Amino acid sequence: MTTPLAATIAREYGTPAVVIDMDRVEANIARVQAQCDAAGIANRPHIKTHKSPELAKLQVAAGARGITCQKIGEAEVMAAAGLDDILISYNLLGEEKMQRLGRLLQTATVTVAADNATVISDLPKAAGLAGRPLGVVIECDTGRKRAGVETPAEAVELARLVAASPGLAFKGFMMYPAEDGWPEAQKFLDTALAGIGLDGLEAEIVSTGGSPNLKNLGRLKGATEHRPGTYIYNDRMQIAAGVASLDDCALMVYSTVVSRAGPERGILDAGSKTLTSDTGGLDGHGFILEHPEAKIARFAEEHGFLDLSKCNERPKVGDVLRIVPNHVCVVVNMVDEVVMVRGGEIVGTLPVAARGKLR
Amino acid sequence: MTTPLAATIAREYGTPAVVIDMDRVEANIARVQAQCDAAGIANRPHIKTHKSPELAKLQVAAGARGITCQKIGEAEVMAAAGLDDILISYNLLGEEKMQRLGRLLQTATVTVAADNATVISDLPKAAGLAGRPLGVVIECDTGRKRAGVETPAEAVELARLVAASPGLAFKGFMMYPAEDGWPEAQKFLDTALAGIGLDGLEAEIVSTGGSPNLKNLGRLKGATEHRPGTYIYNDRMQIAAGVASLDDCALMVYSTVVSRAGPERGILDAGSKTLTSDTGGLDGHGFILEHPEAKIARFAEEHGFLDLSKCNERPKVGDVLRIVPNHVCVVVNMVDEVVMVRGGEIVGTLPVAARGKLR
Repeated sequence: MTTPLAATIAREYGTPAVVIDMDRVEANIARVQAQCDAAGIANRPHIKTHKSPELAKLQVAAGARGITCQKIGEAEVMAAAGLDDILISYNLLGEEKMQRLGRLLQTATVTVAADNATVISDLPKAAGLAGRPLGVVIECDTGRKRAGVETPAEAVELARLVAASPGLAFKGFMMYPAEDGWPEAQKFLDTALAGIGLDGLEAEIVSTGGSPNLKNLGRLKGATEHRPGTYIYNDRMQIAAGVASLDDCALMVYSTVVSRAGPERGILDAGSKTLTSDTGGLDGHGFILEHPEAKIARFAEEHGFLDLSKCNERPKVGDVLRIVPNHVCVVVNMVDEVVMVRGGEIVGTLPVAARGKLR
Repeated sequence: MTTPLAATIAREYGTPAVVIDMDRVEANIARVQAQCDAAGIANRPHIKTHKSPELAKLQVAAGARGITCQKIGEAEVMAAAGLDDILISYNLLGEEKMQRLGRLLQTATVTVAADNATVISDLPKAAGLAGRPLGVVIECDTGRKRAGVETPAEAVELARLVAASPGLAFKGFMMYPAEDGWPEAQKFLDTALAGIGLDGLEAEIVSTGGSPNLKNLGRLKGATEHRPGTYIYNDRMQIAAGVASLDDCALMVYSTVVSRAGPERGILDAGSKTLTSDTGGLDGHGFILEHPEAKIARFAEEHGFLDLSKCNERPKVGDVLRIVPNHVCVVVNMVDEVVMVRGGEIVGTLPVAARGKLR
């Protein structure tokens, strides 16, 4: 079965196509902004999900305090489009990055994260080049074992180092607690805040992250802002995390069934170069609206292997199906543009302007 | 430890950077072409790995018969750059694809694969638009359960259908045998050839695929050409398949250690948006030349999680490391350009012109 809209998209753009529903995008922006407002937590959405200045501006217009970027290349795209108050939630270091960070800082208010002294020793170069202060938050690990110092004592020591560095302004702490790691985060934060208080330092920013953590909004006493990314589109992982329903999923991959060589199997024209191999810990590689019992079992680069053994009704060659990806952020990063739909009608395309800005 | 070249690349381009060694690229091209020549099998390299017309031209100049593309968008980029004799090894169907295929066929000799009657019923539209014949090979499944008819009888039936379709020229059979599936492929092919012989049809092309299958080159009696892709760069999967050594790996990701928050762990600035989540069935996500005992254990989008527990010498923050990816084809597809090195010196960048041509 192919919906009329899917048939139109296939005819006008071809498949696979990454399609966003702007009604749902705007509803997601409004709902999460309202959640943040109700919790008294500023919203600083992470643009890694959509990589679009236009969508970032919608988030800011809805009330977001600023934006979060993971890479300086993303921040450059956003600043060039007029966005300001940018948190780069990542350790930046090295001559090339400092040159760019200095130039970026001339055009926008920028805060960066740091979790070690090597990074903090590089950052004054950028501030010096820009001739204005660079904000720094200390990244704290609270269970995820990604970046971030492991103890409040280290966090306090780095806060002092920032405060003592020319051109740097200590801004506070950044965390990305595991979904069940909030009590641990509270303990960490309380100790770190007490520690910097002894030096007369204050944390203007205490930033938490993650769309799955929207259900924990307001739980960390002292938190000032949250950095949700995926909520603008949502995906199977957000549904599994309990923070979105299928009707909140604003992005779908439209893909054509190109082969049905066996009775219980088929091939989609979307493989690992479209949907990516990220499983997000889930079974199968996406949810197919037209065939909920079908499983995208595995991928070749341009083939999605359909297991249809549990389907009563099975798709035929030429059917265009709508797929909710497991992890939407990595799917968006595969394409140069997405097709925009509103009220069931195509309204044009939107460039994924910061796609591929991996450095 | 950072090599002088890695330091220069980090300073001039920043990290993560995808870097190709042109000496190795040319050696790989020459070696596999010689293997094909020795086996009496034409080489039709798959450009999905490099997605660069410049590199495709090197392959043709070395003796390749033509090229293979997986997507019509890739073929369009190649044809526009002057490449000819293009096999699109994929089922194409639908109005949008037929319009584009018709235009493509006006500029280049094109053969497409088909494994079902729905696709074959669409293809005459493209041939009609172009006003010249479109070659068709029947895709046969020989164990991989991807695309391809499952029986010789179906292959013969589709060959007849192609031969009877206006504007289509039956060209032969296309296979992608599993590495241990060559006896099965031989049986399939012999039966299919006998079947079409009864109708007076001949298979001008019998095409096999896969760089890991280079070790089986010449094993299928009746094969006329092979479609290796990954051999131009190689990766951990090719080493595991026994068709390349570490010294044959022409592409590496240069990545900076940005965090060392624990004694046995670190973070690379290359995550799933650079190295991708494709494991290729291997343990860990890449081989680090400077730290062979280190394991890239998992990814966030922009974080590579280093497990350093088995390392005697451990990298420090700021070290730039060279990583051989598990699966190079999907890594190339993440970037708009690669940095070219020759004789240990940077010689410039090369656009990945057909990147993101997912349709």
